[in-house]
Amino acid sequence: MRIGFGYDAHRFADAENRRPLFIAGLEWEGNGIDGDSDGDVAIHALIDALLSAAQLGDIGMLFGVGSASRGAGMRGTVMLEETVRYVRKHGYAPGNATVTVIGNRPKIGPRRGEAQRVLSEIMGCPVSLTATTTDGMGFTGRGEGIAAMANVLLESVE
Amino acid sequence: MRIGFGYDAHRFADAENRRPLFIAGLEWEGNGIDGDSDGDVAIHALIDALLSAAQLGDIGMLFGVGSASRGAGMRGTVMLEETVRYVRKHGYAPGNATVTVIGNRPKIGPRRGEAQRVLSEIMGCPVSLTATTTDGMGFTGRGEGIAAMANVLLESVE
Amino acid sequence: MRIGFGYDAHRFADAENRRPLFIAGLEWEGNGIDGDSDGDVAIHALIDALLSAAQLGDIGMLFGVGSASRGAGMRGTVMLEETVRYVRKHGYAPGNATVTVIGNRPKIGPRRGEAQRVLSEIMGCPVSLTATTTDGMGFTGRGEGIAAMANVLLESVE
Repeated sequence: MRIGFGYDAHRFADAENRRPLFIAGLEWEGNGIDGDSDGDVAIHALIDALLSAAQLGDIGMLFGVGSASRGAGMRGTVMLEETVRYVRKHGYAPGNATVTVIGNRPKIGPRRGEAQRVLSEIMGCPVSLTATTTDGMGFTGRGEGIAAMANVLLESVE
Repeated sequence: MRIGFGYDAHRFADAENRRPLFIAGLEWEGNGIDGDSDGDVAIHALIDALLSAAQLGDIGMLFGVGSASRGAGMRGTVMLEETVRYVRKHGYAPGNATVTVIGNRPKIGPRRGEAQRVLSEIMGCPVSLTATTTDGMGFTGRGEGIAAMANVLLESVE
Repeated sequence: MRIGFGYDAHRFADAENRRPLFIAGLEWEGNGIDGDSDGDVAIHALIDALLSAAQLGDIGMLFGVGSASRGAGMRGTVMLEETVRYVRKHGYAPGNATVTVIGNRPKIGPRRGEAQRVLSEIMGCPVSLTATTTDGMGFTGRGEGIAAMANVLLESVE
């Protein structure tokens, strides 16, 4: 059994730059996240957790970095599917996973079940989604951006 | 075996608003933490770690949010007891847990053993408490507030 | 099987105070980290993860705090070796570990394999190293300092 951990943080897009908001595999109301990817910090953290548990590098190694990378513009859900296949090919199966979203928005609670179903189906294991704010403190509290931390347990499948 | 993770952060109360300071199940010297709960970030993180490992939602789902919620004014120790019973009722027993407090105060070291005994007795498993500062950086370093991160392993009990 | 977690954050030294930069057991280009230790946040987080999993306190308890402490000036690799021996003496062997470095520099990717080999050899188990930035946000994004989070699984060795 192997433990993995992932952390990711992204900046919210400013008002002039309208983008869809993707978190934990779902599209939410409100302006989205800046950058080359779809900005889904929850999925990015899960990907790093999977890769670190299997000692297979990190998200930048698998999908590249920057606007010309293979991962640029790729939906988080597609990246997560590919990562799970990659980890399975190397002899590991996800046992369970948990991801925590830290930020002022979106309000996760009402759609927690829906997001958990999407993530659990992709990962083939129970995935929990929790959410918290930082009480107005720090970059997440000031609404500059959003962060996520994820843990995963992998089982060796021979 | 299931892994869980929890994160929580709260703001210290300002000087005009004297409150007792609860962290990791103990009362400490110095002014307390703002908000509707007792502000025990260490216990709140442990609760989210337990609930996420068992895929039972998060602390807001179990105790509500805001001054009219069931959890308002409830001591962290009482919330943790209830959470452990809830998780056990769903077929899981805590194997071990660890929680890290990030902030300038209180100084955890001298009372680490005492806090660990309180938390371990409630959870029915070994609980470790570590503490660190952020070297004057960020909201924890400036003394605006305090954060905690917790991990737990649950075993399935059939 | 026991889970452990560690977090550490240190400030980069300013330009007038040239120091070697140690992260994840390697020396990197660029100015180093302020403080009494060698500032290796990745190793410090791994040490707290190991100690918390075995319920043996934290890095400050084992090596002291401040410029007169036993740990002052000690290389992180030496501290990690001692910690692993200490944890083994108490009946635990590391199963695997993962550590995430959060900061603008150094660029971990090109030397990830080298760092993982150093850490894995010291810990006697697979150790993964991942790295991320915070998109210009917070103390890590502004380049004030660097943080690390680590998870470890320990097995009981009778």
